[in-house]
This record gives sequence, C-alpha cells and structure tokens, in this order.
Amino acid sequence: MKTLSVDLGDRSYPIHIGTDLLANKQLVTPHVSGSQVMIVSNDIVAPLYLEQARALFTDFKCHHVILPDGEKHKTLNDLNLIYDALLSRHFDRGCTLVALGGGVVGDMTGFAAASYQRGVNFIQIPTTLLSQVDSSVGGKTGVNHPLGKNMIGAFHQPSCVLADINTLNTLEDNQLSAGLAEVIKYGLIRLPEFISWLEQNMDKLLARDPQALSYAIEVSCQCKAEVVTADEKEGGVRALLNLGHTFGHAIESGAGYGNWLHGEAVAIGMLMAAELSMREGWLSSKDVQRVKDLIIAAKLPVELPDMMTYDVFMDLMRVDKKVRDGKINFVLYNALGDAKVTHDFKAEHLRQTIEQYQKKN
Amino acid sequence: MKTLSVDLGDRSYPIHIGTDLLANKQLVTPHVSGSQVMIVSNDIVAPLYLEQARALFTDFKCHHVILPDGEKHKTLNDLNLIYDALLSRHFDRGCTLVALGGGVVGDMTGFAAASYQRGVNFIQIPTTLLSQVDSSVGGKTGVNHPLGKNMIGAFHQPSCVLADINTLNTLEDNQLSAGLAEVIKYGLIRLPEFISWLEQNMDKLLARDPQALSYAIEVSCQCKAEVVTADEKEGGVRALLNLGHTFGHAIESGAGYGNWLHGEAVAIGMLMAAELSMREGWLSSKDVQRVKDLIIAAKLPVELPDMMTYDVFMDLMRVDKKVRDGKINFVLYNALGDAKVTHDFKAEHLRQTIEQYQKKN
Repeated sequence: MKTLSVDLGDRSYPIHIGTDLLANKQLVTPHVSGSQVMIVSNDIVAPLYLEQARALFTDFKCHHVILPDGEKHKTLNDLNLIYDALLSRHFDRGCTLVALGGGVVGDMTGFAAASYQRGVNFIQIPTTLLSQVDSSVGGKTGVNHPLGKNMIGAFHQPSCVLADINTLNTLEDNQLSAGLAEVIKYGLIRLPEFISWLEQNMDKLLARDPQALSYAIEVSCQCKAEVVTADEKEGGVRALLNLGHTFGHAIESGAGYGNWLHGEAVAIGMLMAAELSMREGWLSSKDVQRVKDLIIAAKLPVELPDMMTYDVFMDLMRVDKKVRDGKINFVLYNALGDAKVTHDFKAEHLRQTIEQYQKKN
Repeated sequence: MKTLSVDLGDRSYPIHIGTDLLANKQLVTPHVSGSQVMIVSNDIVAPLYLEQARALFTDFKCHHVILPDGEKHKTLNDLNLIYDALLSRHFDRGCTLVALGGGVVGDMTGFAAASYQRGVNFIQIPTTLLSQVDSSVGGKTGVNHPLGKNMIGAFHQPSCVLADINTLNTLEDNQLSAGLAEVIKYGLIRLPEFISWLEQNMDKLLARDPQALSYAIEVSCQCKAEVVTADEKEGGVRALLNLGHTFGHAIESGAGYGNWLHGEAVAIGMLMAAELSMREGWLSSKDVQRVKDLIIAAKLPVELPDMMTYDVFMDLMRVDKKVRDGKINFVLYNALGDAKVTHDFKAEHLRQTIEQYQKKN
C-alpha cells in the first residue's frame, strides 16, 4: 500500500492506494466522526462491493442508500434520495457519509455532505479508475443542470480516500479507458516523462497489470494532490486540470448525459486542445499526432458525435465555469507536458479545430 | 445611517442600517464583482422595491428572477428557478447575486450563491424586520426539506448587507411582530438591559417609530455581528442564537411550512425554553411571566397549534441540527439575558413544558 497526502492544514487527508484495502478497517475508522455512517452507492457497484464496505463500519450505526447508476442521474432531484435517507434515519450533523462508486457517486455524495445540515464529514471509496485518479481527490463536488455540467456544487474535502485497486477488476473496458484519459491528462499537463512511460506501457494498463495500474494511479494522485495543495479553490494552477474539459463538458451535455463517458469526452477534448495549440503555432503537427496516437492506444474516441457542430459547441461552452466576462478560457499547451490557461487565440482557429474533428463520412 | 461590521478576515463585510439606502448606489457598487448582477426577489416584494433595487445596479448587466412568496416555497425545487435564470442568461463564476426580500429570499439566494458554479458573490438587501435583524447577517443559507427546516444549506457570507428601514413601512403587522421575536431574542440571550428597553418601548416599535426601530435593529445586528465574528460556523457561542428555535422549527414543520411564521414559532419556543428552565430551577415563575408578557406585548402567540402534541414534538425535534448522538441540545436560561446550551434536563420536565402550552379549551 502507498499513502499520499493532500496538505490543506487542518483539513489535510490521506489517499491510500493498494490492493485489499476494503478488508482493512483500520484505514477508515480514524476518519469517521460521530456514530452514524451512511454509505452511498449505485445499483451497479452495490451488488459487488457494498457488503465489503459495510464490514469496514461495523463499529458504527451503518445504513446505506443506493442511487440509480449513470451521469444522467447526477441531478438535484436524485440528490434528494440521499437527503431523504439521512433525514428518515435521523442522521445528525456529526454523521459521516461514505461514497462507494465512481465519479458520479463521489460528486453527489460529496455535495450531499457539503450541504446536509450545512456540512458533514465524508469519506471517498472510489471504485473506478477515473474516480481513483481524479474525482475522489480534491474536494470538487456537485451535480449537473440540464444547461451545464457540474453547475451546482461546492468545494468540500473528504477526510480520507481509499483507492482499492482490486475494484478495477470488475470495471468494464470502456470505463477503464475513460479513466486512462485522466491519467494521460496529468502527463500532458506537466509530466513529459510520464507521457513517454504511458506510450510504452499502455498495453499493460489495458491488460490491468496491477503493477502498471498502481504506478499510474500513484503518479496521477501525486500530481493531483500537489496541484490541489497549491490551489484548493482553482484561483490559478488548478485550472490546468481542466485540460480537455471545456470541449469535453460541451460534448457530454450536447450528446446527452450518459451517452458519452466523461473520460471519452475529455480525451477528444485534449486532442482538440492540441490541434488548437498547433494552429496557434505552439505545438508541432508531430506533437498533435503523439496525443492522437496515445488516445487511440487507450481505446478512446478521436471523432466528435454528429450533433457537435460549431454552433452547438459555442452555445454550450458559453456557460462553462472557465468563462469570465464572455471570454472562454481554454487550457492549451506551451508544449506537451506544459499546459497553460488562455483565451488568447484566433476564433477562426477554434472553428477550424472543431471542424477538423467532425466525422468525415 | 449607521454602519456595523462583521469581522471575518478577508471575508469581512459591512451592514448598513438607515433610511433611503435603496437610493444610494455608492453603498453597493464596491461590493459587486464581475459585470453580471442577478436580483432575486419574490412576487410580494418585487412590485414594491424591484425598480429601486435595479437602479442601484445600472452600471452592470442586471437581470432579475421572481420567486413565489412564502416558506412553503423554500425548497430545492424552487431553488432551481434561480439556477435556471443564471444559466439561461449565461451567468459566469464572477457574477453577483442580490437577495431582495425577507428571510426566505435571503436564505435561498445565499444558498444559490454558495452552490452556483461552486460559489459566487452575493449581497443582502433585507426588506423585513426579521431578515434585517437576523437572517441577512451571518451567512447561514439553505432550503427546507419535508422532514426538517433548513436541512440543506451552506455557510456562505454576503459581501454587504443593506437594511433600508423605509421598506418596513410596507410590512404587514404580523410580519413586524415576527421580526420582533428575533429582536426580543437578543435581549433574552445576553442583553438584560435591552429586555427592559423593549418592555418600555414595545408600543413605539409596533407603531413603527423610525427612531425606535433604528435603535432595535442596530442593537440586534451588533449582537449578531459579535456572535458571528466569534464563532462563524456555530462550534460554540453562536448556538445561543438558536434560543426558541428547536421548539420553533418543530412547530413550523408540524403546522406545515407557511402556516406559522418563523418568528411566531420562535416566540413561543423562547417562552417554552423559559418554562423548561423554571422547571429545572434556573428561572423564577416571575421570569417566565416576564417573557410571556413581552411576547404578548409584541402580539405574538403563547399557545401551540393543535397538532403539536408531545409525540409530534419529539419526532420532529429528533432531526434538529442541534441533535448529537441522539441527545437534543436546547438553548435554555441561566437567567434572563444569560442563555446556555444544554441537554441536561429531565425528560419529564420537557413533557410538562409541552403540555403547559397546549390549548386549554
């Protein structure tokens, strides 16, 4: 097991990464406050891991609530299922929520914890690669609105993250690939050597080699932890973690939540960011091809869904959280492994970039 | 005009109290961030004051959204009206929300500001006595759940509070009395001399004498500001501000939101807290009579609604935010003007207290 730390003063917390962690009570017990524990999971993950998770909390009054699976259920309305469960069981302000599942479960549980009785404790037990390397760390929580992704939410840090690599054995192939998109992201943002490692080890990752997965998760969490420590509320460097996300959120929203996985949309978004950077003269065409090859190697898409025309993109991106005073801020590249936030690019290059990745047939 | 300050480091903010403040742009302009302003009001207040409020923000892109009036609309569902307005107008993370109305509008606007894009700026323009002396100051925001009042929310401080006493001229008599309940509360918690002042000046307050109202609002806001400065997130002394609220929230919920005004429920709650304190030997029967007389003088109720039996109280109070590990914490009295939080009282005395204030006919 490897333990990393997110250093945020009295709100610091550990990230435990390893195998068989769901059998180790001692890792979570110190991070439970109060006597009441509510495990939040979904109808895909609960049959696989709820029993093991409940066994972690036998020293407490433990209940659970099961959400319907999927991004299309990441709504204010579905959030009410968590509040209903807490209130009908008389959960008080000293209770602990536990997120057992992927990014949707983590984001919703985190926002429920941020807002129940104006804020209670919570623990993340991510069971997908994407949530282990990204969404479970850093305290971004929230739900979607029909007009934009993650538009309703809060910054609320967990008290502990438990990433048990065993849970990746039951993950579907497309979910594994979606997680790899966020792993690739860390390389593209600020770890040039990790890009090379990924190019050499993508086959092992897809074959779920435990050592390769462990290393990729550790590097990713370390990078995320450093960035969050430096800039918890995204005033500066944290914004780089949104590489591919302005395009990606528009695709998720435009295609209808749940039709494209978050990681799939981010993958092509990172490629489009490379294309736009090339058109601005910051990357070579060889750099763009390298990004494209890595995304293809991870079995991620490099063509947009049909409905994502220029006009649809512009309309959806105008409500992105990276917009200030009407200007869209993109994360683009100085070089591969060196990202930057900017709104200083030619509108014509943006149009060409979008057209470049529309389906050709 | 009088200006008080809530001192919370870089989140400190002014409370301006006086007449004709809605005509004074300079008070709010420094507290607007970004270029977009969304005024949130309701269908009672908007016809009276929206035009004046909009004139404060002519230097900005100003829009508004009108909520249905009343505590029964303080729901997650109605909150969506604010998110819808913000997203359909492409409001970004740099925008400012303005609450123009009473406690419901303030709490909902504040929670929308806390959660829109994980947190944006907001300004409070309270137009009722209750919101001017209590809810607009201190950063408690939220909505109700069918199983409990203010169960979903956040701590999120405004950047400015503008309490224009002119707006009290259009307030209905029962709303004025409801506000006086919270004014009385400050005296009962920690200002014994203010209790005497209130006993001598209640007629002037009910007659809306501007000088008497100004003084009462200033004393109340000063007390609230001091308590919030000392304990922003209610770890200690701030809990005293909940005098009467554990009983009161149960009454509001039991009677159906909107059937009893918050201040009315708090008034009888403060009287019941006095009764329970007397039964524990901490107050004299003369003290209880003094509280009762003051509440009657403010034209507030001293008899419970029919449905509030002992069992109903107990069931509703078990989900109160003051409950920890199954113990109900009440704010009770060491003496009038000296409140304390305790769960150390006889269950039998609580039962007798509830029965004492049930209707006798």
